Amino acid sequence: MGGHPFYRFCRSALEDIRKQGRYRQFTPLARQADRFPVYEQGGDVQAVAAADGREVVVWSANDYLGMGVEPAVVEAAIAAIREHGAGAGGTRNIAGTSPLHAALEAELADLHGKEAGLLFVSGYVSNQASLQAILTSMPGWICFSDRQNHASMIAGIKGARGASCVIFEHNDLADLEAKLAAAPKDAPKLIAFESVYSMDGDIADIAATCALARKYGAMTYLDEVHAVGLYGPEGAGVARRDGVADQVDIIEGTLAKGFGVHGGYVTGSAELIDYLRSVASGFIFTTALPPSVVAAALASVRLVRRESWRRERLFARVAAFRGRLRAAGVPFMETPSHIVPIPVGDADRCTEISRRLLSEYGLYATPINYPTVPRGTERLRLTPGPFHTDAMMDDMVAALARLLGVSADRHTEAA
Amino acid sequence: MGGHPFYRFCRSALEDIRKQGRYRQFTPLARQADRFPVYEQGGDVQAVAAADGREVVVWSANDYLGMGVEPAVVEAAIAAIREHGAGAGGTRNIAGTSPLHAALEAELADLHGKEAGLLFVSGYVSNQASLQAILTSMPGWICFSDRQNHASMIAGIKGARGASCVIFEHNDLADLEAKLAAAPKDAPKLIAFESVYSMDGDIADIAATCALARKYGAMTYLDEVHAVGLYGPEGAGVARRDGVADQVDIIEGTLAKGFGVHGGYVTGSAELIDYLRSVASGFIFTTALPPSVVAAALASVRLVRRESWRRERLFARVAAFRGRLRAAGVPFMETPSHIVPIPVGDADRCTEISRRLLSEYGLYATPINYPTVPRGTERLRLTPGPFHTDAMMDDMVAALARLLGVSADRHTEAA
Repeated sequence: MGGHPFYRFCRSALEDIRKQGRYRQFTPLARQADRFPVYEQGGDVQAVAAADGREVVVWSANDYLGMGVEPAVVEAAIAAIREHGAGAGGTRNIAGTSPLHAALEAELADLHGKEAGLLFVSGYVSNQASLQAILTSMPGWICFSDRQNHASMIAGIKGARGASCVIFEHNDLADLEAKLAAAPKDAPKLIAFESVYSMDGDIADIAATCALARKYGAMTYLDEVHAVGLYGPEGAGVARRDGVADQVDIIEGTLAKGFGVHGGYVTGSAELIDYLRSVASGFIFTTALPPSVVAAALASVRLVRRESWRRERLFARVAAFRGRLRAAGVPFMETPSHIVPIPVGDADRCTEISRRLLSEYGLYATPINYPTVPRGTERLRLTPGPFHTDAMMDDMVAALARLLGVSADRHTEAA
Repeated sequence: MGGHPFYRFCRSALEDIRKQGRYRQFTPLARQADRFPVYEQGGDVQAVAAADGREVVVWSANDYLGMGVEPAVVEAAIAAIREHGAGAGGTRNIAGTSPLHAALEAELADLHGKEAGLLFVSGYVSNQASLQAILTSMPGWICFSDRQNHASMIAGIKGARGASCVIFEHNDLADLEAKLAAAPKDAPKLIAFESVYSMDGDIADIAATCALARKYGAMTYLDEVHAVGLYGPEGAGVARRDGVADQVDIIEGTLAKGFGVHGGYVTGSAELIDYLRSVASGFIFTTALPPSVVAAALASVRLVRRESWRRERLFARVAAFRGRLRAAGVPFMETPSHIVPIPVGDADRCTEISRRLLSEYGLYATPINYPTVPRGTERLRLTPGPFHTDAMMDDMVAALARLLGVSADRHTEAA
């Protein structure tokens, strides 16, 4: 062993990644449920760092509303573990379906105004398995895929060997229409897109996309992963906010971001969901989500639907943070969403600023480098939440101004 | 909506599945942690069944050792939820790496005698993402894949577009060698196989497979999903039992079966694992496992390594059950593993026997039909565990004898 050429390949690939400044070092951070967004910096197993046990304020979590630390969610998880144990013990078909799974699927269908829902072990798998299953079902599928679609959607589309994929420019309806019009009239068509794009924080025009879908006889598959819990009445997402959820064929979402727990799902018509349930490999051949995860997610979804103060406070805090950045002259990308990207534009510098934020200021913001974003658009991606205080914001803005070299009289703002 | 041809396709595909007797109806079953393997039959959300709340003895769970209901595992999960909340809140790179994740990866590497380990959200994803990443790394890969490899391995191999796949007959070393010998000498080669095959319950000759790998310069990728926790010293799997774990390049496993929790993993050399960590899409772009899942799995792995009584008792109970089946003349497939398949050979009959076991006897055994097994080999798959009592076994054997129409004087045994 060790002589196979793949070992040499790994060594040299890792060297290249390091040279490009995009080697990822995971920072062990232990979330403190009672002080979110405060985490404790944890020890790496290899070396006990001097920083162990130090408090860090995290600015990059995707538990946007802090639902993962809500007492009702935590207690639901604990009650389910005590009653049912730690794991599901089997696939959905092999004794892994608890009444909780069925209840959560019904709840999610109801949230999106659909007939049925289906749980997956992650949002990634929900996209990959569903898109692949749909696009291999009939011959001749053409999938129209937004250029900035998430890796999981791309994996599902690419995995469908018989289907062809037409990429349209990001959120560009004219380009989408031109490509729909140019496609064979009788081919089955699917438009795959997201509502909130997570890295640029921009939002698709769902109504106009659905209008094009109707005009050209296409189905629509919408990823609302970064929107569920945050947008629209009951946190049902952007499609619901825009009053067009009923025009979207398939709405996909996650339980791991706005709902703060774990897992992914799709919702749609009863037959379509039953078909996916019956054929999608990534659904069938995998252990069901643990009952405790399902119970926590169910408690979270119900709470998010009932109470709007968390999402209202989230957007108020985002506005407050943007105001402070503006006042300090720290450049940021204005977005119509809750996401605040700070452009840096170079992988090495991005990684270095993130490192210094952590080591010098006790602030955590993930550097976002290629392949997550195109080269030259490297950034820090900040996600202020309902529990980031004024003092935390002042700390972050001051640190960013210092590390980005912003002088007091510069009040510019990036596009 | 509803007019797209895909909706008609779904309807007709579901009708076909029903006609073939392989439509899957999930039975909602609520595991009772304090009485495992006793579950409570749960209500479907659509209709409150008369059977709600009825006790059912489950004979098909993959929590082979009952680790998911071990008090130490349950308490570890609860402590982690109280401390860190219900979810991870981000990908491994985006604040989702807790010190628990690093500790579990180190523990799993140590279990298999490897330098490093990497966690995935499921065993399915660990196979799919790892195999796809390896087989797309260099040009010209040839993957030699056992004909009965799991759907997740097939998904990873098929997903690697540049690679070619050569299927060798199941556990047939002569066929494997012929195919290795026929392949171009310089092409990078990978042999992908399992130790315990879950549906037939047979076990691969790992030592001989590794010897062929050495002879032909191939790497080896071994799925020990149905073996970890059960076989070998410390429950480290069949490769360890056979003293050849150091000859296998990559050992893949799950935390959801023998370890009773949730998630999957791979172990191997430090550089290989670091490469997968850096490039595998299904690892990078997904929310990390919740800290509570990781804490529970860590407690489980440590307990399983330390205490052998559960696996000893498992095999003793399996032997006791086989003895009872034999005495009653109930046909079963003799396997060298802990899995006891009861051949039925027809999807409709298989589903019907399973249904009657549940409704008339309060016993749950999943019908295994196509596509999980080839048509004509439909079966019930039983997994007796350390906590199936003599009385439970008597009940199951009597019910099977009745439903399979075994007369008292027939003492046959299936191959």
